[in-house]
Amino acid sequence: MAAKPFDGRGIMTPTLPRALLFDVFGTTVDWFGSVSRKISEVSSSVQQSVDSAGLTLNWRRAYYSGMAKVISGKCAWHRVDQIHREALDELLPRYELDCIDSTQRDDLNQIWHCLDPWPDSRSGLTKLRQNHYVATLSNGNLDLLIDLARHGNLQWDTLFCSDLFQHFKPDAETYLGACRLLALQPAEVMMVACHRGDLDAAASYGLCTAFVTRTLEYGGHEKADHASASEYDYVATDFIDLARQLEAA
Amino acid sequence: MAAKPFDGRGIMTPTLPRALLFDVFGTTVDWFGSVSRKISEVSSSVQQSVDSAGLTLNWRRAYYSGMAKVISGKCAWHRVDQIHREALDELLPRYELDCIDSTQRDDLNQIWHCLDPWPDSRSGLTKLRQNHYVATLSNGNLDLLIDLARHGNLQWDTLFCSDLFQHFKPDAETYLGACRLLALQPAEVMMVACHRGDLDAAASYGLCTAFVTRTLEYGGHEKADHASASEYDYVATDFIDLARQLEAA
Repeated sequence: MAAKPFDGRGIMTPTLPRALLFDVFGTTVDWFGSVSRKISEVSSSVQQSVDSAGLTLNWRRAYYSGMAKVISGKCAWHRVDQIHREALDELLPRYELDCIDSTQRDDLNQIWHCLDPWPDSRSGLTKLRQNHYVATLSNGNLDLLIDLARHGNLQWDTLFCSDLFQHFKPDAETYLGACRLLALQPAEVMMVACHRGDLDAAASYGLCTAFVTRTLEYGGHEKADHASASEYDYVATDFIDLARQLEAA
Repeated sequence: MAAKPFDGRGIMTPTLPRALLFDVFGTTVDWFGSVSRKISEVSSSVQQSVDSAGLTLNWRRAYYSGMAKVISGKCAWHRVDQIHREALDELLPRYELDCIDSTQRDDLNQIWHCLDPWPDSRSGLTKLRQNHYVATLSNGNLDLLIDLARHGNLQWDTLFCSDLFQHFKPDAETYLGACRLLALQPAEVMMVACHRGDLDAAASYGLCTAFVTRTLEYGGHEKADHASASEYDYVATDFIDLARQLEAA
């Protein structure tokens, strides 16, 4: 009888990473498309015409600056839901949408729990899960990640979120915390993302890296990150391509 | 249009707990049956006859005493895999199984990652997940819980384990930590277990409780916990019965 690969944990390919950690916003789900459509709906419902792409992009920028305040210590810990909600209050008047009341704002904020996956995400994850643990490693809060998984019917083995560690990516505590909880060495774990910053941080802590190109992350309004083949352990066009490359490795 | 129940999180029944946290060993999976069968196999393979029920029950007792040492501060943090493995080294000589080598012991220890679910667990969870978040809240380590979910094809929304909190149940940090990560009040969360101690602790921290009877938890060799209808918020014969009761509530 052949020795059990990976001491019987059911993971079949000993030369490959045992766990894949996925960035979510942009890498797994299409925030731009989902949020801009929702903004258009909401603005129509209050008879306003709005630059929904602009508001979407600014909302996303405000998420980064909200996290930066926490990372730098200027702000106490904020869940991403709070960061999104506070950013919305700041942004709506600039788009002449201050008529939207508090309940409608809560409802609009909830769109971040219902982002559509990219067309390949679901089937790609299912394929990747056959040979690897698959988990999120996201700055989103846990209930948001649960809702995204339900909305997109994404089968994760478990969810790692910033609130578990009280740190946002790219802080070391997130990448290394996930490895510790999986009882794996960083070299046995691969970060999968469409953002170079996320992968560069992961690599600096010893994780393997897979870059996935998401050309339309910003709906074509801004240039998405790009990588050439030699820059990361894997560079893939989508999750299905990544699964194919890992199977062939 | 009716108001979105639970601010759009997709949970449909506002008068019921939004999240169900499940004990795993005994409540969701049959540790006694799975472990005792594995011990029989291993002892046959080394031409030994062994009291597999007795060894299984003692192994389980050693798990409790191993955790008690951590809870009382006598020992540093131990993952459950370590507690099981150290207990095995202590127990095997008492059963004249010291011939089993280190690799075989690792393999035997891994049985705790492959425990069969009770016959109702999978379909019951699928039913319960329609209206509630469903998650583990277990003293098992995370990779063990992932492996159990894969082995039994159990669809959890997420996994809470003791290593997240560096505390074992029944410490408050586990129950309240899960509530905090879900951004729910304890009263919005229900602990589901076949152990009175687990539920009594959960109730003392403000969680709702559901007792599920698992008469055969100890394979009939020891009396399993029992509860009468008034003692917990719900008392059910299995997960499917619990789903029925929650739907009717």
